[in-house]
Amino acid sequence: MPEHDFQPSRYHNTLGTHRQVLRLADGDTLVTTTVDAGGFDASGTQVTSSGNPMTGPFFIAGAEPGDTLAVRIDRLVPNRSSGYSRRVLAAGSVDPSYVRFLPWPADGSSDRAEWRIDTVAGTATVTDPETTLAALPLPLAPMLGCLGVAPPGGQAISTATSWVHGGNMDYRGIVAGVTCYFPVFVPGALFFLGDGHALQGAGEMSGTGVEISLDVRVTFRVVKGVASGWPRGENEGFIFTLGNARPLDHALQHATTEMLRWLEDEYKLDPVDANILLSQVVDYEVGNMYDPAYTMVCKMPKRYLTRVA
Amino acid sequence: MPEHDFQPSRYHNTLGTHRQVLRLADGDTLVTTTVDAGGFDASGTQVTSSGNPMTGPFFIAGAEPGDTLAVRIDRLVPNRSSGYSRRVLAAGSVDPSYVRFLPWPADGSSDRAEWRIDTVAGTATVTDPETTLAALPLPLAPMLGCLGVAPPGGQAISTATSWVHGGNMDYRGIVAGVTCYFPVFVPGALFFLGDGHALQGAGEMSGTGVEISLDVRVTFRVVKGVASGWPRGENEGFIFTLGNARPLDHALQHATTEMLRWLEDEYKLDPVDANILLSQVVDYEVGNMYDPAYTMVCKMPKRYLTRVA
Amino acid sequence: MPEHDFQPSRYHNTLGTHRQVLRLADGDTLVTTTVDAGGFDASGTQVTSSGNPMTGPFFIAGAEPGDTLAVRIDRLVPNRSSGYSRRVLAAGSVDPSYVRFLPWPADGSSDRAEWRIDTVAGTATVTDPETTLAALPLPLAPMLGCLGVAPPGGQAISTATSWVHGGNMDYRGIVAGVTCYFPVFVPGALFFLGDGHALQGAGEMSGTGVEISLDVRVTFRVVKGVASGWPRGENEGFIFTLGNARPLDHALQHATTEMLRWLEDEYKLDPVDANILLSQVVDYEVGNMYDPAYTMVCKMPKRYLTRVA
Amino acid sequence: MPEHDFQPSRYHNTLGTHRQVLRLADGDTLVTTTVDAGGFDASGTQVTSSGNPMTGPFFIAGAEPGDTLAVRIDRLVPNRSSGYSRRVLAAGSVDPSYVRFLPWPADGSSDRAEWRIDTVAGTATVTDPETTLAALPLPLAPMLGCLGVAPPGGQAISTATSWVHGGNMDYRGIVAGVTCYFPVFVPGALFFLGDGHALQGAGEMSGTGVEISLDVRVTFRVVKGVASGWPRGENEGFIFTLGNARPLDHALQHATTEMLRWLEDEYKLDPVDANILLSQVVDYEVGNMYDPAYTMVCKMPKRYLTRVA
Repeated sequence: MPEHDFQPSRYHNTLGTHRQVLRLADGDTLVTTTVDAGGFDASGTQVTSSGNPMTGPFFIAGAEPGDTLAVRIDRLVPNRSSGYSRRVLAAGSVDPSYVRFLPWPADGSSDRAEWRIDTVAGTATVTDPETTLAALPLPLAPMLGCLGVAPPGGQAISTATSWVHGGNMDYRGIVAGVTCYFPVFVPGALFFLGDGHALQGAGEMSGTGVEISLDVRVTFRVVKGVASGWPRGENEGFIFTLGNARPLDHALQHATTEMLRWLEDEYKLDPVDANILLSQVVDYEVGNMYDPAYTMVCKMPKRYLTRVA
Repeated sequence: MPEHDFQPSRYHNTLGTHRQVLRLADGDTLVTTTVDAGGFDASGTQVTSSGNPMTGPFFIAGAEPGDTLAVRIDRLVPNRSSGYSRRVLAAGSVDPSYVRFLPWPADGSSDRAEWRIDTVAGTATVTDPETTLAALPLPLAPMLGCLGVAPPGGQAISTATSWVHGGNMDYRGIVAGVTCYFPVFVPGALFFLGDGHALQGAGEMSGTGVEISLDVRVTFRVVKGVASGWPRGENEGFIFTLGNARPLDHALQHATTEMLRWLEDEYKLDPVDANILLSQVVDYEVGNMYDPAYTMVCKMPKRYLTRVA
Repeated sequence: MPEHDFQPSRYHNTLGTHRQVLRLADGDTLVTTTVDAGGFDASGTQVTSSGNPMTGPFFIAGAEPGDTLAVRIDRLVPNRSSGYSRRVLAAGSVDPSYVRFLPWPADGSSDRAEWRIDTVAGTATVTDPETTLAALPLPLAPMLGCLGVAPPGGQAISTATSWVHGGNMDYRGIVAGVTCYFPVFVPGALFFLGDGHALQGAGEMSGTGVEISLDVRVTFRVVKGVASGWPRGENEGFIFTLGNARPLDHALQHATTEMLRWLEDEYKLDPVDANILLSQVVDYEVGNMYDPAYTMVCKMPKRYLTRVA
Repeated sequence: MPEHDFQPSRYHNTLGTHRQVLRLADGDTLVTTTVDAGGFDASGTQVTSSGNPMTGPFFIAGAEPGDTLAVRIDRLVPNRSSGYSRRVLAAGSVDPSYVRFLPWPADGSSDRAEWRIDTVAGTATVTDPETTLAALPLPLAPMLGCLGVAPPGGQAISTATSWVHGGNMDYRGIVAGVTCYFPVFVPGALFFLGDGHALQGAGEMSGTGVEISLDVRVTFRVVKGVASGWPRGENEGFIFTLGNARPLDHALQHATTEMLRWLEDEYKLDPVDANILLSQVVDYEVGNMYDPAYTMVCKMPKRYLTRVA
């Protein structure tokens, strides 16, 4: 199928029904780049305003409201040698009574840590502050923090948050090899992507991963006549659903409800079977517990589904 | 070190400062049994009242308030051939608007699923209802749903819930090979255990694992002069902390705060290093989202700690 | 000051930077109408699509980002003789295990209750279903469920939800005689209003008040150089702040934080005095616990502030 | 009916099945005293350990599991001239990011404010710190922060928290003139009371009211064969239910569910009528948002119930 190279020249800080930057067909592949959360590109130049600026939107011909847009992530590679994160966990990550005792930077000093990214060695290493972490290269695990489609109802939703259309979910499982599924709300779906992290812990507890610009390759597919209630995805071992809300409980409820629907509607499990099986083999991951909407991920091992469904 | 065989004759439905059933020394090993959550033993006989009846309490000589009790789980094996679970997720597991559409049993019919436990094959299989699940033996992963020590302040806390003393955390990671750490609040610590599951999904979303009686072997060790704020544990790959509260957010905050303390106080990480590292490599698991207190688990890979600390 | 009569011909289902429908000056008064949550007007005709369609936006000359828009509600009167509500509480209003036992309507029958509105007697009475409630006229207490300004960052936020810009807060305290304060994010503020209720219980527990179209009279004032973090308001007895988030805890934290800022920044209370006083005299009300963001209201009696500040 | 004078000599920091201090009959009146949250009595002497020490338990003859214990609060009067509170809101009362900016006392200095209690004038006034609040006498509104009965299942539950048995609910509505209703779980009910506040804001946002010892007069009545799921109460204008849990959402759900049951089971409202009426006239108050379990209060105006039921 055709492969389109697209170099963005403008970005969006909301996911909305914005003018498309490129039209692709069902099955097409897109090769493009994303700037980091602060709007800095591969050359380290700030090319747009901060706050998870998105590349896109991409119009996928044939995607109509009520369909699903499948986005296979073929490749995610940091395209520069430095990233950054915060030095301190977000206040909401710890007990309220402990917030005072986090190592807040002195007035006027920086809360920012600098990282060296080595895509050959496959590592990220803290270079500032100068600490013992300099001796601890961490494995790269590049991911997309924010991706999704135009939401329904004429909304333009900040890239700070997430909802049924996707958005800023900060799930460390959105890596190369994964296919994501988004419900389509507007003609062409209007797909956006950005907010790359060279790596990130579960929950994005400092409010940052190791923020980086990326080279990206994704392939689109339109699934006609099926629309999920929340974003879905799959990798080799699991199918998963993403629920976005506060508190984590509600995000988990959304993800679990969506998984039941998936098991029953598409894997054709009897509802009782779906309930019993989910209860005994499900796993959960935390996307983020930082953004205005938190993200919980409900995961079902494919090996059980193959045998049952 | 000495190994004590103990066969319980009475059980407790609270963790409190109850009369010890056996006195052990620091370093001793205990071989005992637990009944299932409904009070049924290895022979399938109900020997005590329902509601997570506990074996214990065991007095560990030398454990004093301000110390930590380490409990290494050497062996957990189902000791009968049948277990049970619920058929339907708990109402709180799904979106409130979806609760009505769960497959609730008709009035008068059972919400209970029966399972055949095969410890030779290492599998658990649904036998009732008679469904396609009969063809899907699931791997056994025996765990302790409820374990801990007498809480502080003369409290007697129901085995339905959990807190700083442990209790009903329903974390599927409490398996053979794991060492758990509990803060000691009363002389001898007074350790309790029970509520075995042949397997259980994360979150215990139906309010049950596959409920089973167990043969158990654990070894105690007293760590003097160190007391954690919340239960801790470790396995081959990870150290982990368990926070117990509602909502999941507060449980996660407890677990994360406890992990920071562990990294700083015992691994001697600089606070900024601890914050940066945790933020980029931490993982979380859901213990349960069913009990009066939910449980979140914060996990740090040991391989990074070895190199840093 | 000038009074402008404005009869809307189109409506919005988002609060965003939409084209103004009327330009007013600082101090001007607006007389207009709102349709009900379903888009029905004074004549009972559906004139726009459902989902809290808003009248507006109104451009208030002189309002710039960083200012506050004060909106005094002079008059709110139902302009037709029938309203409606749901018959059943929302599923999220009760314990999850109780959801099944709410009086859900049989398949195909209506969840809608009809109300007769008598503005002369000042009452609202249920007319359908035909129940004992027919003998219980309830006092009218007309309020605006949704009002606010264009949000920052180019967002267009659904009238289903609320945030720092106001929106669908469903606070029964937004009645005639109250002045609301909104932070201004775009030139002219762009004020929207709608979703009138003839009366409504705290929390909007069925997801509806008694939904009605309204005649409205409001007066605008621009407060230069002061911008609150969250919407504020005052009536004869209280100043109040509105926090919008899930869960209620976070909404309450937003409202309380905003109140501390107000007491310290504008009433010039010493921070310790503000903390002590708030702790011993504050009151809270629930706006709604139904929408994607819940609303909590923090109220401070003016009589103590007069004497201190 | 007989009136019993009882002067406590020992206190409890848990509500549990402790030995009764006095046996009363159905209809009897009790005149007694409570120490403050720190264990200080009318003379300002610490007579027991801190942490909401309770007077009691009182055995009410005839109260059996499945009954309700009605406790009318006849009189609550501070019995000394000084009280105390904290100076700073609890960390969990504000936005996590704002916690650092609360006026925390310098290391080694006190977080405690002293208050002068004038029962003749009916006021409480801050005396330390010396601030403008010295000129602001606040009206006394004496209340019981912690009261309830022995919980079920042999539990002994800390007076720091609350549940179905009552406990530390810190609801400012528990004042003279109110009747509280508690489900009975053990023979004689075993009633406890303490943690008096001279006044307290909603939510107990600093974790304290103005802490004080009290003279108390209460009258007991046993309601046979009726047991509520959560504590209930009534005053002249309202019937109310108290739900205890985290987050506030769950506390509110408990209280709302309990109110529906009350309206349907005892006021005999048709379920649809109960739902419609509650939705349009209910009010909520916050008990505390500080303790391990928060408290929300659901209130229904009696005037509507009289006319319907």
